[in-house]
This record gives sequence, C-alpha cells and structure tokens, in this order.
Amino acid sequence: MTGQSAPPRSIKLTYFDFHGGRGEAARIALSVAGIPFEDDRVVFATWAALKPTTPFGGLPMLEVDGRRLSQSNAINRYVGRLAGLYPEDAWEAARCDEIMDAVESLYGDMTPSFGMKGDAQKAERERLVAGPIPLYLRGLAGLLGDREWFVDGRLTMADLKVAETVRHLSSGRLDHIPTDLVENVAPTLAALRKRVVEHPGVRAYYTRFGL
Amino acid sequence: MTGQSAPPRSIKLTYFDFHGGRGEAARIALSVAGIPFEDDRVVFATWAALKPTTPFGGLPMLEVDGRRLSQSNAINRYVGRLAGLYPEDAWEAARCDEIMDAVESLYGDMTPSFGMKGDAQKAERERLVAGPIPLYLRGLAGLLGDREWFVDGRLTMADLKVAETVRHLSSGRLDHIPTDLVENVAPTLAALRKRVVEHPGVRAYYTRFGL
Repeated sequence: MTGQSAPPRSIKLTYFDFHGGRGEAARIALSVAGIPFEDDRVVFATWAALKPTTPFGGLPMLEVDGRRLSQSNAINRYVGRLAGLYPEDAWEAARCDEIMDAVESLYGDMTPSFGMKGDAQKAERERLVAGPIPLYLRGLAGLLGDREWFVDGRLTMADLKVAETVRHLSSGRLDHIPTDLVENVAPTLAALRKRVVEHPGVRAYYTRFGL
Repeated sequence: MTGQSAPPRSIKLTYFDFHGGRGEAARIALSVAGIPFEDDRVVFATWAALKPTTPFGGLPMLEVDGRRLSQSNAINRYVGRLAGLYPEDAWEAARCDEIMDAVESLYGDMTPSFGMKGDAQKAERERLVAGPIPLYLRGLAGLLGDREWFVDGRLTMADLKVAETVRHLSSGRLDHIPTDLVENVAPTLAALRKRVVEHPGVRAYYTRFGL
C-alpha cells in the first residue's frame, strides 16, 4: 500500500445495523479484498451513548490499530487503498474522489428531507426529484460515459458508492422518490449497479447476508 | 508526485472572482508551491453561461492538460499532491481527508441558509449557531488537539481549508453569525488561522492581492 510501511494489525468498522448507507461501500470493499475486520453494527438503542464520542456526531467510524477516522469518503479512500480498490494514478484517483464527493453532496442535499414528515416531506422530495437528484444522476452518468467502470478500467470505490446510491434511490423505501427515477434519468448508472452486483467479490458479500 | 509519471503541462483553476470559498485553498496551495496556473476568476455575469457546462452545476473546476475535474476536495487533494501540501503517509492522508470532508459537511449544513431572507434566514442561522456550527468547530478542534498543524507536522490542505472557514465565519459578512463564535467555541482554530496567515507562502499570496 502506497505510503504506509506496515499493514494494520486490527481494523474495526462501526456503522448502523442495516444494509446500505454511508458505511456500505467500505464494508463491501474490505469483504471483496478478504481483509479481516470487525464488522461492528450499531443498533439505534446504543447509538445515543456512542454518538457523543464521535468527532462530528455521525457514523461510519473506522478504527485502525486503535486510531479513529471519521467521514465516510475519508474512510472509503483509506479502505480502498488497503483493498486495492482505489487508483494508484493521481488523475484516476482524483476522478474517483470527484465521483465519491459528488455522491456525498447529493446525500447532503437529501438530508433535510429525512427530518420532515407529511406534506412538508412530500414537497421537499418532489423538489429533489424535479431538480437536484437528476442533476447529480446526469452528472455522474456524464462522468461514466461509455466506460464499464468509472475509473481505472476496473471496479473501484467510486462504483461501490454509486451502486449503493442507485440501490437506495430505487428501493421504494424513500417516499415520493419514484423507483424508476434512476432508470429513466440515468440508465447507464442503473446498468452499472447491475455490473457491480454481479462482480464476484460483491456477489459473495451479498450472498453472505442472504441478499 | 506519487502515481503520476509526468507533471502536468497546463493547469487552470476556475472559481468565482472573490477571495475565499471552496476554491481558495487550491489557489493558495498552487501559489505557495510556485506552480504556474491560469487563475480563472469568473464574474457572476458570465457564470450563467458556464454553469450548464460543469458536471454538477458548481465551481471550483480544475483543468489539467485539458481534462476537467470538479468537486472542491477532489481538486484540493490533486492540487495538494502536486504542491507537496498533502501527506504521503496513508494514515496522515486519511486524517487530512477527514478534516477537509468535515468542513465540506459543515458547508452543506450551511447552504440552505444562503437561499433564505429575513426572519427565515435569522431563524436558520440561529439554529446553526446553537448546534451544527459549534459541533463541527469542536470536532475540528478535537482533531487538532495540541498540534501546531492538523496533520503531518506541517502546513497541508487541511490547514488551508479550515483557516479559510475560520476567516469566513469570523468575517461579519454572514448575518446572524457572531464574529467571535470561533474564538469562543474553538480558540485553537482561531489560533491556527493566525499561523496559516503568517506562513511565508500564504503571506506572499495575500500580499499579492493586497489582503
């Protein structure tokens, strides 16, 4: 691994006890690479006590030989380098970062709607569907172009992060977001998601959890 | 530069024509390192025509030998590697990423308030001052600890990004955000900002613009 003399002795990834979300790409990456790690899944009942001990009140959190790291893309990048799923080339790495950061920015735009209910949530979600979500989906599809994978000609963290986002947006679990939105707006991203799921290492991860 | 065989022949950084904001750390970094670049400053009158040509409708935008890169921290990381202001060590790099991503997350929390006016903006800004902004300031101060610089024992992109944020929050140009908020909540970050400004390379940048 570039710029690190010895591989870590212990890795613990702490995230919520569900499939998906900001912690999922790192979980999958470690599994794909066969890197042993403590898959610490937090239930909401214990989250209240854990939350004040995190630097910014959020998860995921990575612990490497007892040292902690927060912020999902910082974790994705570190884990991606460990797992061989992050480009060595500086420009390809920058493109991988661009894609992961764009997805985080989309998450940020969507965040307020999760705290809303009823008509307020409906209005906000309709606003997101009319503008911000398609903007990001089209932008990401533009960066993918006619490539099989986003960067480096192979599966990287960028693909894992976008695939999880496509799954989430198409899941039907987000009220007022049509399940065919991605397919309609950015069909190449929906196709990418299928390729990611069919990747042997990713398939093995999902199979392990009966997904 | 790790992972890149040849240095770029041309670099163009496009951002708005003011001091500060998401493009400032990269501008300063290139200047500190003495790397020639086209400092393309966009006035709002021309932004409307440029906006649809960007992947996600935003700036900054970096062009390297004609290839484009968006997302401010992706740009900061690439430019930081070019400028020698980004750690080579994987863990220190991850910590640098954590800090830059946390600042982006704070920006994201603050974004809706910029589109508000009057009482709505006042209420939203007071909410930010009561909770989210101090959360991030304290979290960043915790990551700084008693170090002189955030990571790697020297000035890096993390310091440049946080220093710009401290300047902005303390500038008095953000209605309803007290100019002494950073000093009161996270005095070590205010002190860091002073160290950054006094760094010879950073000082030279500001002097060039009469700041």
